[in-house]
Amino acid sequence: MKIAIAQINPVIGDFHHNFKSIYAQTVQAKKMGCELVVFSELVLSGYPPRDLLEKKEFVKANLNCLKKLIKKVEGIGVICGYIGENPENLDKPLFNSGVLFENGRILHITHKRLLPTYDVFDERRHFAPGTKSSVFYYKGLGIGLTICEDAWNDKDIFAKQLYPVDPVALLIQAGADLIINISASVYYMGKNRFRSRMLSAIAKKYQVPLIFCNQVGGNDSVLYDGISAAFTPNGDIAAQAKDFEPDLVVFDTQSLMGDIHPISSTEKKAVEKALIMGIHDYVIKCGFSTAVVGLSGGIDSAMTLYLAVRALGKENVTAIFMPSAYTSRENFEDTKALADNLGVELSTIPIDEMFKTFLKYLVPDFKKESPGITEQNIQARIRGTLLMGFSNKNGCMVLSTGNKSELAVGYCTLYGDMNGGLAVISDLPKTLVYNLADLINQEQEIIPARIITKPPSAELKPDQTDQDDLPPYEIIDPILKGYIEEAKGIDDLVKQGYDPKIVADVITRVDQNEYKRNQAAPGLKITSKAFGEGRRYPIAKRLRPV
Amino acid sequence: MKIAIAQINPVIGDFHHNFKSIYAQTVQAKKMGCELVVFSELVLSGYPPRDLLEKKEFVKANLNCLKKLIKKVEGIGVICGYIGENPENLDKPLFNSGVLFENGRILHITHKRLLPTYDVFDERRHFAPGTKSSVFYYKGLGIGLTICEDAWNDKDIFAKQLYPVDPVALLIQAGADLIINISASVYYMGKNRFRSRMLSAIAKKYQVPLIFCNQVGGNDSVLYDGISAAFTPNGDIAAQAKDFEPDLVVFDTQSLMGDIHPISSTEKKAVEKALIMGIHDYVIKCGFSTAVVGLSGGIDSAMTLYLAVRALGKENVTAIFMPSAYTSRENFEDTKALADNLGVELSTIPIDEMFKTFLKYLVPDFKKESPGITEQNIQARIRGTLLMGFSNKNGCMVLSTGNKSELAVGYCTLYGDMNGGLAVISDLPKTLVYNLADLINQEQEIIPARIITKPPSAELKPDQTDQDDLPPYEIIDPILKGYIEEAKGIDDLVKQGYDPKIVADVITRVDQNEYKRNQAAPGLKITSKAFGEGRRYPIAKRLRPV
Repeated sequence: MKIAIAQINPVIGDFHHNFKSIYAQTVQAKKMGCELVVFSELVLSGYPPRDLLEKKEFVKANLNCLKKLIKKVEGIGVICGYIGENPENLDKPLFNSGVLFENGRILHITHKRLLPTYDVFDERRHFAPGTKSSVFYYKGLGIGLTICEDAWNDKDIFAKQLYPVDPVALLIQAGADLIINISASVYYMGKNRFRSRMLSAIAKKYQVPLIFCNQVGGNDSVLYDGISAAFTPNGDIAAQAKDFEPDLVVFDTQSLMGDIHPISSTEKKAVEKALIMGIHDYVIKCGFSTAVVGLSGGIDSAMTLYLAVRALGKENVTAIFMPSAYTSRENFEDTKALADNLGVELSTIPIDEMFKTFLKYLVPDFKKESPGITEQNIQARIRGTLLMGFSNKNGCMVLSTGNKSELAVGYCTLYGDMNGGLAVISDLPKTLVYNLADLINQEQEIIPARIITKPPSAELKPDQTDQDDLPPYEIIDPILKGYIEEAKGIDDLVKQGYDPKIVADVITRVDQNEYKRNQAAPGLKITSKAFGEGRRYPIAKRLRPV
Repeated sequence: MKIAIAQINPVIGDFHHNFKSIYAQTVQAKKMGCELVVFSELVLSGYPPRDLLEKKEFVKANLNCLKKLIKKVEGIGVICGYIGENPENLDKPLFNSGVLFENGRILHITHKRLLPTYDVFDERRHFAPGTKSSVFYYKGLGIGLTICEDAWNDKDIFAKQLYPVDPVALLIQAGADLIINISASVYYMGKNRFRSRMLSAIAKKYQVPLIFCNQVGGNDSVLYDGISAAFTPNGDIAAQAKDFEPDLVVFDTQSLMGDIHPISSTEKKAVEKALIMGIHDYVIKCGFSTAVVGLSGGIDSAMTLYLAVRALGKENVTAIFMPSAYTSRENFEDTKALADNLGVELSTIPIDEMFKTFLKYLVPDFKKESPGITEQNIQARIRGTLLMGFSNKNGCMVLSTGNKSELAVGYCTLYGDMNGGLAVISDLPKTLVYNLADLINQEQEIIPARIITKPPSAELKPDQTDQDDLPPYEIIDPILKGYIEEAKGIDDLVKQGYDPKIVADVITRVDQNEYKRNQAAPGLKITSKAFGEGRRYPIAKRLRPV
């Protein structure tokens, strides 16, 4: 049997759009001679619908969408995810469900059993777990349908079981000839490598083909990489869809052959594609089409502008340079060169007169030689206000430019440079921003070399560099990774060889700046632990042992 | 047996502080002749620790705190909540546990079975559910220990069961003579009335006394009202602790008598106390002692200032008035009168010169007669920047002043009047703000009458009132309550008799302004559904049926 794996980019709650996308793919799959087409988890509503699930009208719209699809699609079987109702008067009122229908009839329904409730996932908030794993037969093939996390509890792969059952093992026991997994598998660096190996190992262990259909696209902070695939009973990849783009590939269960489409060749190239997709989807799905970026002459705003241009087109992106008395000649030149290289319109708004007016009213004792935190923040907030003013006037989204290292230690101004609808590189440690810049410049200098080589500076006081206040990013970044992504404590990090004083300083800064991050714009998640929805810390707290 | 119910206000993560508070209460309870003292859920770490639970050092510090308590407390039994470790290599690594210890020995441990995972609760994110309900005997009494939600699944009280077991029923079956429930029961209006009736009904149904020990205090957005209590087997209240304050009351299981301390006599008085406690705890637990409020001459900022003064003392609160060309003479006078009534220092910073400077650079075509959204927002952002500048200079926290109705429909400026560390009245609908003002003025005019009677206005353009853009709050507020707190849809609301056009308009505004609320300061929760952590909606979405 030829099976199409349809990797689409649904818009949350836009049943009209999602219906059309799904239907178009069923037509395409039929044309390609497929008897079955597989879509991703909760594809009707898009994943994650979050608390929209608490609205009865939303659940009804999803069921209505399913009904219309069942009525309209002809001549091909369809497997897709949807929001199911729990008829029992016990537990949560919904299921995260999968259905197979064909020619107007539902042939099989299953409910997700393993409900991830960690990091960005809140499934136990909304869903009751399914309790059955039964195989269904379609065109003579025994199919075991699993939904995302259902395939993530194999005891040969995970040292620790988060859940008491392994639905894949149960389906194999029940006689499945083929495992299908429909997913909304959240992207982060390294995820696909692990996921692909895991799925391959499962196929090989049970000696059955395995089909994995993933969502693609960005929904707020969370990105989906696609790379839907089919694995042979030997664990080889027989079909593979593109990364970070909608796609459709075909897998033949008889010949065990399929379409293999290319994906990014390196982790860094994948990050670049992920961010471009994330900007595009957030801006467009929010109903915008244009964006504005404040350029400082530094690497972060240069990177953000580059990515915005790739995502939205140069004609849809404006750059604004807002020099102060502390802005160097270099930064004038570098900003101009960057905008020229990218073909982007550049406006310049000097902030000195506004700054002086604020000082007159707020800090009459201000000495120009060495502005304190108050004066530094005022400059950042004038810039933030100008960007928002430009946004209000022109209907474009402000993209903020802070990186993860700065956001972690609070080296950023709330209501200033943190202003924006999307914090594009807020999950990229500073060192990764540099690495990505090198990649971007590999064939041609797009980001002027001096932007990459000069020492990072906020330029909020004379001759300031980040390293006046902070240890070098090469030292901070691994400590932050340990503390934030790997949940390591001070003791662990000191044991790893980091300077105890620096570790304590960095950790204290992270802990003290929850309040800033709590009010940050959503950022595009590219690591296993990003700030935002997936990391929930109290603000008012004191970490003090007995 | 005389049992002390100790209602303390723990600081999240401050094991040093919490240990001292707990120990002091055990000494006090012993002095009062008690043989047992009961503390609230997770009292060692404070509730909710959120993702601090993912830090091994945090869990260890909690276990260490428990060990030290067990070692130090003598001559009295102690029941308290703590973070337990799950020894099984299955499910989440932690339990939400309760322990009884006495004279250096642990006599009983239980683990919470029903783990709330909705609204502000994320317990399934961190905890494995307990699987046993066993009675333990202490001084001849069979005690059934339950933890918060464990008591919230009685089939005679709830039409729908969220969980498959009822730990209270199981403990009674197992022979419990006394039910103890240790809680961190989140406050909202009407909660205590329901909770008290429920606990009374359970005591009466099983004909056993029931002790309820609740946390008190504010932790970020979430407030705990205390009102710990003991119920007789007839369901009568035999002991009751104060609301919104630490307290200790004694209940005698023989005489079924105890201390009854007064609580707020009306729902509105309770809200006032809740907000005052919430401001105090957030400011102090964040390490601040002073606050600043921007006064506009309107009711919201007046209410915020009043509450801040009650929470922190007039000497710790500064008011800033920032008039523009559109500010009325009335608002000058009213602001002055309010500050005088409250005994608060009032600074005045006119914003016109800053406004003009921004316009010169950003909106050269600005016409003074009718500022558009851009110009209106610039004024709000200048004020926000001035408040933050004052905060940076003086180390005080900015309290923002927006109410729930405004935040719901987006009638507020991001990075402007939304600036602040805490959004004090962001869960109060505008109509409730008025009601509360009447209560405050009942004995003496504290908030000048004209502030209450004049039509609400943002004063960002000439002769502006809120009702130029919005339907009256008396109409908006019930629609918002239905949509936000009761998860009603358009159809439900129209059926209730609201104008379909207004309903559609209000709902659209709510949906379109997720991005603003996503970057709002934490607000004090006083309704069953507040914006913030307990309400998680996608930003990039389109709500469109097929």
